[in-house]
Amino acid sequence: MIYADYNGSAPLSTAVKEYLIHRINTGPFANPNSSHHLGAKTMLGMNNARKICAQHLGAREDQIIFNSGSTEGTTTVFHSLLSEASATKTPYIFISNIEHPATHTTALSYEKQGFKVKFIPVNENGAIQISVFEQMVKEYRGQIAMAAVMASNNETGVLQPFEKIALICKDEKIPSFSDTTQYVGKLPFDFQKSQLDFAVLSGHKFGAMVGTGILLARDYRQVKPILLGGGQERNLRSGTQNYLGNETLAVALDAFAKKSNRIEILKHKKNDFEKKIKAAFPSVKIIGETVARLPGTTYLAYPKLFGQAIQIELESRDIFVSTSAACSDDKPITSRVLKAMKVDDATGRGGIRISLSIESNLEDSDSDYDKIYLALKDIYHKLLKINCF
Amino acid sequence: MIYADYNGSAPLSTAVKEYLIHRINTGPFANPNSSHHLGAKTMLGMNNARKICAQHLGAREDQIIFNSGSTEGTTTVFHSLLSEASATKTPYIFISNIEHPATHTTALSYEKQGFKVKFIPVNENGAIQISVFEQMVKEYRGQIAMAAVMASNNETGVLQPFEKIALICKDEKIPSFSDTTQYVGKLPFDFQKSQLDFAVLSGHKFGAMVGTGILLARDYRQVKPILLGGGQERNLRSGTQNYLGNETLAVALDAFAKKSNRIEILKHKKNDFEKKIKAAFPSVKIIGETVARLPGTTYLAYPKLFGQAIQIELESRDIFVSTSAACSDDKPITSRVLKAMKVDDATGRGGIRISLSIESNLEDSDSDYDKIYLALKDIYHKLLKINCF
Repeated sequence: MIYADYNGSAPLSTAVKEYLIHRINTGPFANPNSSHHLGAKTMLGMNNARKICAQHLGAREDQIIFNSGSTEGTTTVFHSLLSEASATKTPYIFISNIEHPATHTTALSYEKQGFKVKFIPVNENGAIQISVFEQMVKEYRGQIAMAAVMASNNETGVLQPFEKIALICKDEKIPSFSDTTQYVGKLPFDFQKSQLDFAVLSGHKFGAMVGTGILLARDYRQVKPILLGGGQERNLRSGTQNYLGNETLAVALDAFAKKSNRIEILKHKKNDFEKKIKAAFPSVKIIGETVARLPGTTYLAYPKLFGQAIQIELESRDIFVSTSAACSDDKPITSRVLKAMKVDDATGRGGIRISLSIESNLEDSDSDYDKIYLALKDIYHKLLKINCF
Repeated sequence: MIYADYNGSAPLSTAVKEYLIHRINTGPFANPNSSHHLGAKTMLGMNNARKICAQHLGAREDQIIFNSGSTEGTTTVFHSLLSEASATKTPYIFISNIEHPATHTTALSYEKQGFKVKFIPVNENGAIQISVFEQMVKEYRGQIAMAAVMASNNETGVLQPFEKIALICKDEKIPSFSDTTQYVGKLPFDFQKSQLDFAVLSGHKFGAMVGTGILLARDYRQVKPILLGGGQERNLRSGTQNYLGNETLAVALDAFAKKSNRIEILKHKKNDFEKKIKAAFPSVKIIGETVARLPGTTYLAYPKLFGQAIQIELESRDIFVSTSAACSDDKPITSRVLKAMKVDDATGRGGIRISLSIESNLEDSDSDYDKIYLALKDIYHKLLKINCF
């Protein structure tokens, strides 16, 4: 079985599986906020996890707020930045036009309150151009409530200049947010260095447990909680902390750091795979081919062939890919992200997203990429024949 | 080791531990929203869990919305009921004065928007009296936006007439909500029968994984989501579902149902324990002694002795109890709940909460209650001596 849908969700990493089985067998289990020593031990373990996460994310411990994942994190960021902002003085919310639905939909929901969403366009490679952003900032200077640009796109893997944007935002005093969900655990990330005010991530995208996440806040006093109650996470996120899950965040980030030498191997294998596919099938399009992308993401389209047909054929060979983002995987239409890149429908409907990880089999002779290449070659030939009839 | 802080958090139940270890070893892991069959299999597993949860909770599957726990659930309920309600026409939010901070704080947060919180008082036993509630409804008829009464109190275990209240609310067309976090997994619960519009629960209170929960909604169309994005849970709770955690909800509820014959044994052992303690130490007060309580909860106070001293002495004998709710366990003051019951400070500061479960050792000769009794006898003698000096 080849799992090639890491951008959809990563399986529990080997380190996390081992950790969890040991952890479940040995305990302790307690409310981390209970004052007896089982509670204290649980809290200590979780705060140790916080420390490890902070180290691996280039953040201070007080910048880490554990939550249930990026959708919750994103909602908290918008609430923090907009609930007391003036829709009259600073009506503009800047977001890229390729954001994940969590950012896209949440931003648009603030239009009811008088804010206006301005989309930062991407070029045909799916990347934001700094000059375009600068021009927009110039045009709306002093009226921008916040700017959100994801670190890398979930569908295409195209890296965005989120650090440069954060720097411009810092100079212009615009609060900045980046959805780093598809970036953390795939490439090294340094929150301090990024200059971002806020970032979010989800554990299940890099081998930690599903239902876990972190909100990174430059200044935790800027966070306005959306969940009120017991006052956990220094009053910033009430609700008994998911200590088991939060521990796996540390284990997965640690495992990633230890295996980070495999990032280059992954990138190399992917480039090699893309070259071979293009050589064998010159009609194939690789979305964002010429720009920097995540090391393990290839969005591959064979114009006129349906992505779903290719996906099903791959599946019959025990290879699992997506046709687009997981949340819209069942819609046979050109996605919003591809439309933003002006990808035509013939191509857009024909795409599959192959997303591997440093946990994938990358051994030279018989790697996952080699197997996917052989399978695709076979499938393209078969489907093209059918197409001819 | 005797774990007697089930109301703070239940350890993973034996069934859940076994399930998880098998589950982690065998998979599948995938985004339940991915269209390949690993995703479909994950979704199928989670929807099977939903079905099992629905059966055990007396609910329809479409009434179950998986989330991260009761704090999130409670926030969603208030948002659903109040975001489009008129603070002019229906300004009054009824909540009991012994609610968990999640309800208490969230309700008060709506005062900024013009709503007014009216507290339903409890009597000296910590129970709401229906006649008092009826009187309040009469007084504010037509101006009540919602009513929230928890099913059982987390500190005292006192059962509340939440079903009768829901019935009155139904007649009076007042939306009703009950925080059933401390009830589900301790006593059988039937959502349909309860007549409630909304209820919430957290998995970690009954042996499922921490960070999991369910929002129960009579009519899911009344739910207004607080998290927007990928449109999971039929657009009612975006964010990749915690499928692993949600599966453990089903396993834990199922284990509870299978062991429900132990509820009576637990209750019997607790009553026996309380009788023996009262006989040996007539000064001891049991909060809510004369009213119906959760089968495994005893809030025990020895006036003039500090609860924390007793807790520490018990801990040195490997017995783990709380002095109050987990979220306020470190505050040596009479809690808001006990104050609402007009418990004096000498008693209030002297309390410990012993909360056991049907998973506890209840064997006749050598049960957890027998051991706690012997330990307490010893500790009271010791601490009373110190007091005399």
